[in-house]
Amino acid sequence: MRSHYCGQLNTDLVEQTVTLCGWVNKRRDLGGLIFIDMRDRSGLVQVVFDPDLHELFETANKLRQEFCIRLVGTVRARPEHQINATMATGAVEVMATELEIISRSEPLPIDFNQQVSEEQRLRYRYLDLRRPQMSHHLQFRAQVTSTVRRFLDEQGFLDIETPMLTRATPEGARDYLVPSRTHKGKFFALPQSPQLFKQLLMMSGFDRYYQIVKCFRDEDLRADRQPEFTQIDIETSFMSADQVMAVTETMVRQLFAQLLQVELGDFPRMTWHEAMRRYGSDKPDLRNPLELVDVADLLQDVEFKVFSGPANDPNGRVVALKVPSKAEAISRKNIDEYTQYVGVYGAKGLAWMKVNDRAAGRDGIQSPVLKFIPDAALHGILERTDAQDGDIIFFGADNALVVAEAMGALRLKLGQDHGLVSDAWRPLWVVDFPMFEHHEGRWHAIHHPFTAPVNVTPEQLQADPGNALSNAYDMVLNGVEVGGGSVRIHRHEMQQAVFNILGIDEEEATEKFGFLLEALKYGTPPHAGLAFGLDRLVMLMVGAQSIREVIAFPKTTTAACVMTDAPGVANPEALAELNVAVTVKEQD
Amino acid sequence: MRSHYCGQLNTDLVEQTVTLCGWVNKRRDLGGLIFIDMRDRSGLVQVVFDPDLHELFETANKLRQEFCIRLVGTVRARPEHQINATMATGAVEVMATELEIISRSEPLPIDFNQQVSEEQRLRYRYLDLRRPQMSHHLQFRAQVTSTVRRFLDEQGFLDIETPMLTRATPEGARDYLVPSRTHKGKFFALPQSPQLFKQLLMMSGFDRYYQIVKCFRDEDLRADRQPEFTQIDIETSFMSADQVMAVTETMVRQLFAQLLQVELGDFPRMTWHEAMRRYGSDKPDLRNPLELVDVADLLQDVEFKVFSGPANDPNGRVVALKVPSKAEAISRKNIDEYTQYVGVYGAKGLAWMKVNDRAAGRDGIQSPVLKFIPDAALHGILERTDAQDGDIIFFGADNALVVAEAMGALRLKLGQDHGLVSDAWRPLWVVDFPMFEHHEGRWHAIHHPFTAPVNVTPEQLQADPGNALSNAYDMVLNGVEVGGGSVRIHRHEMQQAVFNILGIDEEEATEKFGFLLEALKYGTPPHAGLAFGLDRLVMLMVGAQSIREVIAFPKTTTAACVMTDAPGVANPEALAELNVAVTVKEQD
Repeated sequence: MRSHYCGQLNTDLVEQTVTLCGWVNKRRDLGGLIFIDMRDRSGLVQVVFDPDLHELFETANKLRQEFCIRLVGTVRARPEHQINATMATGAVEVMATELEIISRSEPLPIDFNQQVSEEQRLRYRYLDLRRPQMSHHLQFRAQVTSTVRRFLDEQGFLDIETPMLTRATPEGARDYLVPSRTHKGKFFALPQSPQLFKQLLMMSGFDRYYQIVKCFRDEDLRADRQPEFTQIDIETSFMSADQVMAVTETMVRQLFAQLLQVELGDFPRMTWHEAMRRYGSDKPDLRNPLELVDVADLLQDVEFKVFSGPANDPNGRVVALKVPSKAEAISRKNIDEYTQYVGVYGAKGLAWMKVNDRAAGRDGIQSPVLKFIPDAALHGILERTDAQDGDIIFFGADNALVVAEAMGALRLKLGQDHGLVSDAWRPLWVVDFPMFEHHEGRWHAIHHPFTAPVNVTPEQLQADPGNALSNAYDMVLNGVEVGGGSVRIHRHEMQQAVFNILGIDEEEATEKFGFLLEALKYGTPPHAGLAFGLDRLVMLMVGAQSIREVIAFPKTTTAACVMTDAPGVANPEALAELNVAVTVKEQD
Repeated sequence: MRSHYCGQLNTDLVEQTVTLCGWVNKRRDLGGLIFIDMRDRSGLVQVVFDPDLHELFETANKLRQEFCIRLVGTVRARPEHQINATMATGAVEVMATELEIISRSEPLPIDFNQQVSEEQRLRYRYLDLRRPQMSHHLQFRAQVTSTVRRFLDEQGFLDIETPMLTRATPEGARDYLVPSRTHKGKFFALPQSPQLFKQLLMMSGFDRYYQIVKCFRDEDLRADRQPEFTQIDIETSFMSADQVMAVTETMVRQLFAQLLQVELGDFPRMTWHEAMRRYGSDKPDLRNPLELVDVADLLQDVEFKVFSGPANDPNGRVVALKVPSKAEAISRKNIDEYTQYVGVYGAKGLAWMKVNDRAAGRDGIQSPVLKFIPDAALHGILERTDAQDGDIIFFGADNALVVAEAMGALRLKLGQDHGLVSDAWRPLWVVDFPMFEHHEGRWHAIHHPFTAPVNVTPEQLQADPGNALSNAYDMVLNGVEVGGGSVRIHRHEMQQAVFNILGIDEEEATEKFGFLLEALKYGTPPHAGLAFGLDRLVMLMVGAQSIREVIAFPKTTTAACVMTDAPGVANPEALAELNVAVTVKEQD
């Protein structure tokens, strides 16, 4: 029905007859002529209707916004002074010769030229998606998946589908459950990830697996989570962590080069410990130049308990965070706001220090805590932070976790508020995560219990779990974790050691992971993998603020679809057949 | 860790050192040497261990079936008389120089050399998938999806994901339901297909959409159904039925040409009426040469009510089904079995006639019903079926539906039993389906209520629903419906006419399809689409007998996974949080 897409028209096509299909984006009547901007998924082009073609003009006169039309016309170059440089097709226009109104549109229920609430946008998502920006987001996303697939296909990865209806387990929190009709009173769970299946595929010998796959997590939706999200899921056999990182880094580098013409270069690597030390985060945003500087050793002997307490506690931490040249810009009121802000993360206060005139010694320093800081410590802090006149330094002192969270968050906020974040792409790998963390009297796996430790025997691991590092790696881009993975345990003895440390006895291990443990007995290859969050990756690449902007039909923050009115009331007979009953009277 | 895959080794690599990773497929000790067939996903290669390399030989001596190993060796040509022509790498072998046992295997719990039950295979699916045939199936499937994606990407189709958590409706039978935690007492449904979402994407202007997507249907699993199955889902705007058929036919043709080196040629088209008339099926297997021949007009006046009843009933049908040259081969016992067989489809009996000597007139015919058939009718039947000496003719007489089902099934069975089915690929399009069928006193849509009729106005449609044809098309290959689709209604008046015919009033229409009806108001483009059953297509292409053979982790016929033991018992606290309770005491 069409010869060209609107956005393809250019001066090469002048004098040619084209047939277009699309929508009336805008209509203007000017100087006795009718002009419309005609739109399809490729973009816009201006169409002109000449009143001398009476019948045609009469039809054109019926056109309203969002009418769906088919149009034949001749491409012509616009006169120099009418060229619209802001429009991709702005050098040409189409002189209409035929027009068919395919279907009319009522006036739109929302006016996208006005501020529209997200709820309204989601209710009329099919209209929202007509907007060039949203159309671009989804077209770009399709380019991302197709580029990723092409890359992985070429590298010998096999696209293999894993089940959506998987095993519900008594300990499975955050699982979406699906009642089984044939197995009375039993449930499937929708997968949080295909982790165990992809490991089994390695045991089956498929060697290189990938899947772009929906995963599900039923949790309270914070800022930017979705109940269903999409992973680029990868697993390989006989490859080291370095090799997995190399191939996936190449994939992301090619993605940016091909789709954004951005050269990311080699990704630096940073240990988890360094990331926590310098940025208070395991996903540091390297576009932000601010860094945490440890100063506990300088403050161990001060009388001020707020500092000396954490400084002398093995689990404590005291850091300085210098913001260059912002002593003047950051007011007392701002500082109060920042104090509130770090309070959200558990910090009990926010000490600060303005360096007005460093050469003037104590007199050049303005700080409510100055009186608690002896000369030597003050000197040490200024030296170590390389403080200059006009700088402001914030202090965090608490247990290490609170300091990292609060000061890491403050670092990001200061970067945002004061325009310190560079306009760049700053990827990195975070590696050497701790294997376990100890709380509530026992050890917990930081990743999952199938993650392999770095370079220890099972005996060494059991002797000192707290210092073991896992062979895991996260890809971080501009402060967002876009991917994460690990080498998996492929030997029974190591798996046993990890279970021992986690306090999982044989019965529990069999109940929880029986089929995987059984599979480990039959010549398991070394294997390692990684999963990317596709939604987040695309969001970053298109510069959107939320993953909802790169998902065709997302759920709201209460996990509902306002367009289709989901979730809905279920058929009572169907529920009876499924052997489940609703336990609330009022449904909402 | 490897330089080559096992299956890549050939005489070009002779004298080269290679590093392989994989499994011990088989070990043989012969003439003081140890031989193993080493396996990875690409295939097998023979490895030889020389006892002169003591340490290596000692390690090799520990090898058992399914040990996972890393091996370094030199490729050498086998002597002429030792070349194994049945093995892709049979012209070479590897002289081992280094061997690492990566992980040992216990003796396998199942012996694939013996007859293994499907339940056992599914329980140890990770081992079953190591078998070259299963590995090939999944690797072939990955090639199919990647070829399809490449084709559709090149044709400008956009891969767009639609939701998995969709709206549950009170009338939704066969939906898998998912309780919502945030919306008490309400449920999501897993999609039976993305039908409405893909139509909305057309209304959004995406023009060409595709997705390879999981769909769900909770029904009693007959022979070869799975609760979750995969569709190649396609929708287009501004394209006619012919154009949709052309692009998807090209896709399938390229798939067969590229992956099977089979040229399918142009697909013939057959109307639904012709398919039912000649084959008693809307998915005729054209490899089978047998055809139904209508003979009601010849039998209207016979006294035998079994024939004359249906022959005079406007809803009745009488057909002859001739099997050439099988009068002798098909015994009375066989006929009794066929009579039972058609009984399953509702036929009350199975009349037959053996043509022993056509020239001899009535005397040359052997048939229990001969006495009921006058000369003229007999002559007509023999003429019309072009019966030759040695042929057998079966008769079906009943209402048209029973005749089609019973005689259509008999046709297939006779073809199977007597080796009449050619070894060929016989695709076709079935088109011009009836729009509605009438039963239980009202009209039902044969496809879904958004399917457009062929070439009628809304008024004409309402005046004569029974004769309206839908603009739908099924792609049938060797008797299997591999894909189906239709042009959709894009105008409100036509949609209203269809709802009127179906007896759906405005309230019900709004409740059921409100968002789609609303969306139809804003300049809907003409759109049409199609969905392929990926599992079936791959099954046909690899020559498997069940879709379970081309799915990595399928469910059993009772919709269970015996490997992971899914479905399972859910966490009672999770159920409480979801506001649902199990209504049976005994869980199974």
